[in-house]
Amino acid sequence: MKTVLVLLPVREEHKQILEQAGEGCCFVYERFQTVTEEQVQQAQIIIGCADPGQIHGSEKLEWLQLHSAGADPYLVPGVLGPKTVLTNATGAYGKAVSEHALALTLMMQKQLYLYRDNQRKNRWHDEGKVSSPSSSTVLVMGLGDIGLSYARKMKDLGATVIGVKRRPAVCPEEVDELVTTEQLDEVLPRADVVASFLPGNGQTRHIFNAERFGQMKPGAIFVNCGRGGAVDSEALLKALRDGPLASAAVDVTEIEPLPADSPLWEQENLMITPHVAGWLHLPEILDRVVEISAANLRAYLQGGDLRNVVDFATGYRK
Amino acid sequence: MKTVLVLLPVREEHKQILEQAGEGCCFVYERFQTVTEEQVQQAQIIIGCADPGQIHGSEKLEWLQLHSAGADPYLVPGVLGPKTVLTNATGAYGKAVSEHALALTLMMQKQLYLYRDNQRKNRWHDEGKVSSPSSSTVLVMGLGDIGLSYARKMKDLGATVIGVKRRPAVCPEEVDELVTTEQLDEVLPRADVVASFLPGNGQTRHIFNAERFGQMKPGAIFVNCGRGGAVDSEALLKALRDGPLASAAVDVTEIEPLPADSPLWEQENLMITPHVAGWLHLPEILDRVVEISAANLRAYLQGGDLRNVVDFATGYRK
Repeated sequence: MKTVLVLLPVREEHKQILEQAGEGCCFVYERFQTVTEEQVQQAQIIIGCADPGQIHGSEKLEWLQLHSAGADPYLVPGVLGPKTVLTNATGAYGKAVSEHALALTLMMQKQLYLYRDNQRKNRWHDEGKVSSPSSSTVLVMGLGDIGLSYARKMKDLGATVIGVKRRPAVCPEEVDELVTTEQLDEVLPRADVVASFLPGNGQTRHIFNAERFGQMKPGAIFVNCGRGGAVDSEALLKALRDGPLASAAVDVTEIEPLPADSPLWEQENLMITPHVAGWLHLPEILDRVVEISAANLRAYLQGGDLRNVVDFATGYRK
Repeated sequence: MKTVLVLLPVREEHKQILEQAGEGCCFVYERFQTVTEEQVQQAQIIIGCADPGQIHGSEKLEWLQLHSAGADPYLVPGVLGPKTVLTNATGAYGKAVSEHALALTLMMQKQLYLYRDNQRKNRWHDEGKVSSPSSSTVLVMGLGDIGLSYARKMKDLGATVIGVKRRPAVCPEEVDELVTTEQLDEVLPRADVVASFLPGNGQTRHIFNAERFGQMKPGAIFVNCGRGGAVDSEALLKALRDGPLASAAVDVTEIEPLPADSPLWEQENLMITPHVAGWLHLPEILDRVVEISAANLRAYLQGGDLRNVVDFATGYRK
């Protein structure tokens, strides 16, 4: 009998869905905050992002179903055994994160961050011209579920969308023009908005560096709702201070939580949210994570194919 | 030969469009800030919102083409002679104001106003659950060009839209359900977002009063990008302090500029922008105003029908 450790804040109806899918298993429900290393080490199956430190060296763990889309902490050598299967929750976050990214984009285009600052000084002051999604060219880096949802929303508002993918592919309907990462430098100067949904891994690390920011259009807006490691913070700060960026909005930073003495906090034309675009901020995300986990649990026990298997080499789905 | 006084910050290409439409007229270009009462009193035709005090008692003015959608200051008895035709610029603002209203709505749904405040204190702090346009019922008051554009955007994001119109009409495609103002009290308790694009006039004054706010759903968000007079500020403040509102965002206030000692400034769950949703904040608005003005000028000189004629009795288009 396999032990399934569930580290999600599930409700009764979620438990029913999981237990139906995993008939015959022994279910243990725990919180991230209170689960013990022993509980983690006893589980054959874990659903939810257990602490990599607690997983480390587990001899029993056969399969880990993450509740996140990003898998980077679990790709570090030694965390998972060579035979452990790793699946992520791609598909659960598209709506929530793309809505957050849209809200941030419009906040910067309409200068609402400045109006909020002025309000805190009881100041009725016109900050001048704004920009419109309808006359913007938007470059979207990372065209998974989240990036495509964001592209669709910007396109509905009239934007021209350039998508960037690692490998050549058929242009999806959410995107007007598709290029590969090799062509990034050619398209960057055309974009009024550059939005990143890239995961954190060796390939994406500091992909937005001083050179890339330097190529951006004067007055461009940069948005990051992927992972903070894709951005060189020093270079971002410089591009916000000296141009070419008009402003930027990030939900993720290189170090999280962002230290209180980071100069990023003080940069007026930067908007920071504390990695809140996804996870449990929108209740339906949990429903989707449970749905994905239950489908995978059923498949796993019946020897079928799992969805969202993470490729250890790239950090992406296989 | 008629004198056309143009009070818009036009560029050369705009002048050409206007002068082609008004062949044979004498064009005078001035700024609001510098135009004299004598210049205003000499004009048969004025394009742009001249100061009502300077217009008052003009015997020559035949037609006033406003650059705004709202016409309230010109409906005050005595400002315009009984034969003066008044037209507004309905149609020029739909995109800009609806985008601003969408940006404000998402800012409140995603709690970005709180995250901005936290940022100013170098504070990385999770503010908890957010809401989504996709699972929201949105009530739109005022279904002109602006209200319909906003309805369309919210519907594209998955919202269910209830439109409110003064008179029964066929339900436009941007809206899921259409009711009349008499039915407002029945639908108010259902809305997660209540957005007003109402003009300022006797009929709309304080339509959002203590009773109406009291009927709103606990946790609802109120947005006003119409005119400030439609809202009783005291009642709004109370609904933000004691419920049922979660938050509100307004681009307009009863008195503008909002006095520095107004308690509205200090209300944390209220977002204020200083009447900047429209006018020249988006460059293409001026293009649209010139287009509407030129078409009307041509029609006026040829004795044709003008677009956007304002009904003095209601303040709306006839």
